[in-house]
Amino acid sequence: MSSPFQLWMKSIQSEIEVSLQHYLPPTDTVPQVLHEAMSYAVLDGGKRVRPLLVFAAGQLFHAPQELLSRSACAVEMIHAYSLVHDDMPCMDDDALRRGKPTVHKKYDEATALLVGDALQAQAFLTLSQAQAKPELVMPMMALLAHASGSLGMCGGQAIDLASVGIALNREELEQMHRLKTGALLRASVMLGAMAGKSLDQAETSALNTYSAAIGLAFQVVDDVLDATADSATLGKTAGKDAADNKPTYVSLLGLEASQTLAEQLRLEAHAALTMFGPSAHYLRDLADLIVQRKA
Amino acid sequence: MSSPFQLWMKSIQSEIEVSLQHYLPPTDTVPQVLHEAMSYAVLDGGKRVRPLLVFAAGQLFHAPQELLSRSACAVEMIHAYSLVHDDMPCMDDDALRRGKPTVHKKYDEATALLVGDALQAQAFLTLSQAQAKPELVMPMMALLAHASGSLGMCGGQAIDLASVGIALNREELEQMHRLKTGALLRASVMLGAMAGKSLDQAETSALNTYSAAIGLAFQVVDDVLDATADSATLGKTAGKDAADNKPTYVSLLGLEASQTLAEQLRLEAHAALTMFGPSAHYLRDLADLIVQRKA
Repeated sequence: MSSPFQLWMKSIQSEIEVSLQHYLPPTDTVPQVLHEAMSYAVLDGGKRVRPLLVFAAGQLFHAPQELLSRSACAVEMIHAYSLVHDDMPCMDDDALRRGKPTVHKKYDEATALLVGDALQAQAFLTLSQAQAKPELVMPMMALLAHASGSLGMCGGQAIDLASVGIALNREELEQMHRLKTGALLRASVMLGAMAGKSLDQAETSALNTYSAAIGLAFQVVDDVLDATADSATLGKTAGKDAADNKPTYVSLLGLEASQTLAEQLRLEAHAALTMFGPSAHYLRDLADLIVQRKA
Repeated sequence: MSSPFQLWMKSIQSEIEVSLQHYLPPTDTVPQVLHEAMSYAVLDGGKRVRPLLVFAAGQLFHAPQELLSRSACAVEMIHAYSLVHDDMPCMDDDALRRGKPTVHKKYDEATALLVGDALQAQAFLTLSQAQAKPELVMPMMALLAHASGSLGMCGGQAIDLASVGIALNREELEQMHRLKTGALLRASVMLGAMAGKSLDQAETSALNTYSAAIGLAFQVVDDVLDATADSATLGKTAGKDAADNKPTYVSLLGLEASQTLAEQLRLEAHAALTMFGPSAHYLRDLADLIVQRKA
């Protein structure tokens, strides 16, 4: 039997699939191949962790549904574009993603490049057209742009690129991941909350602590799974980081210490939510999910 | 001796160089290589046609300086990112841009990919942080995102890609360019005007007609120059379109008819500005510049 949390997750995942389809350009409009490839990259795949975080945080402050939905889709489009570009031959050169051929394999490299570029623009377009007070949406646009750019996700990828074959210490590894995956996870939490109200300092600080903990946990668990699970379960090529000689938590701390760290971070995330009381239960459940997932 | 228009152009170009430097992440912040490469791609190059259009249109409605400056920088960052990605091996595979090695030649392909991605985010960040009324800036964000995405610039590039070796007719060629270069030129004009006020229908329509004319003229002249000028004058590889078997106005209409068309479009652009009276003089001068330029 499904728990209330699992039912909620499924309902958000379904609503996000419908919303993404709605906010993506129709595949029968010119240029069709680009629009098909954008849908291919975004739809029908992934656990939608970021949209789930947006909705879970939005619940804290009774954020309006349309703004949450647009925020969740915008973040997911940014995430999807980053995967498309990250999989390209000049980056990770990966052939499999979410159990399907990557965009440059299914189409070609030029299309993959344009799909990523167009998805990024679509993300900002989707959020900018929200039926909400502009003074509420504008800081959300700034936050999403900052989290996506050179001081966020792209910056993390640049540090990652520069680190192949170099022995990063734990602090450097953390900085890389704080930007590469952490920035967009934090943005998801913040966008959800900001869709409800302007946050005060205590709220911002608590959500930052929560986000930092789950962001790091997400990466630690990713590294553990990369070292222990098989490609079929992951839906992407397993053991790739080790083969590429990339630094991981498992290579740095060992498997057991990595698992202990993930559990510590889960408890930190819970602790950070204390001030929000019972209404933060979905954020708590998501912290558990991130640490206890098997793929 | 320089004309008032030439002096104005030089002053805007200098101000844009300073503003771009201000709105780009500092090159001494981590990740340094990415930030250096972003500055390399954006600074010290180009005629800044789009920023000039932003400022010329802004003058019509007394738009505030800071919002114009941010709009101009945002458009120029989008333009610069598109050049970086367009030059990559999987697209046009070009080694020379504005007389300098292209980003993937100077750095590497992965860096070029990230530079483009991060510049797009930086463009939206720059505009979203404007010290102006959010209800004025929000539609500008939407306009820029729409012009950059799959129904604008990226869409035009996708059509361009699909058209190599195919005999496009004039209508198809126009549609491709209306998106590929036209969308961002139109966005420049509109952003400048919208920075001053919410446009009424007559103003929007007149500026659309002007933008369509200069956008098309820009491309026709580009094709003429590609066929007649040398690489040193252009600062990029000349004759490349013909070598790549890409459709151009010159290959479709011939050289002389292309030159006549450009002149007709210049006059159309002038005619569209009638309702704005004398204060549209910089927009008129820019139409002349676009058609009469030598590089």
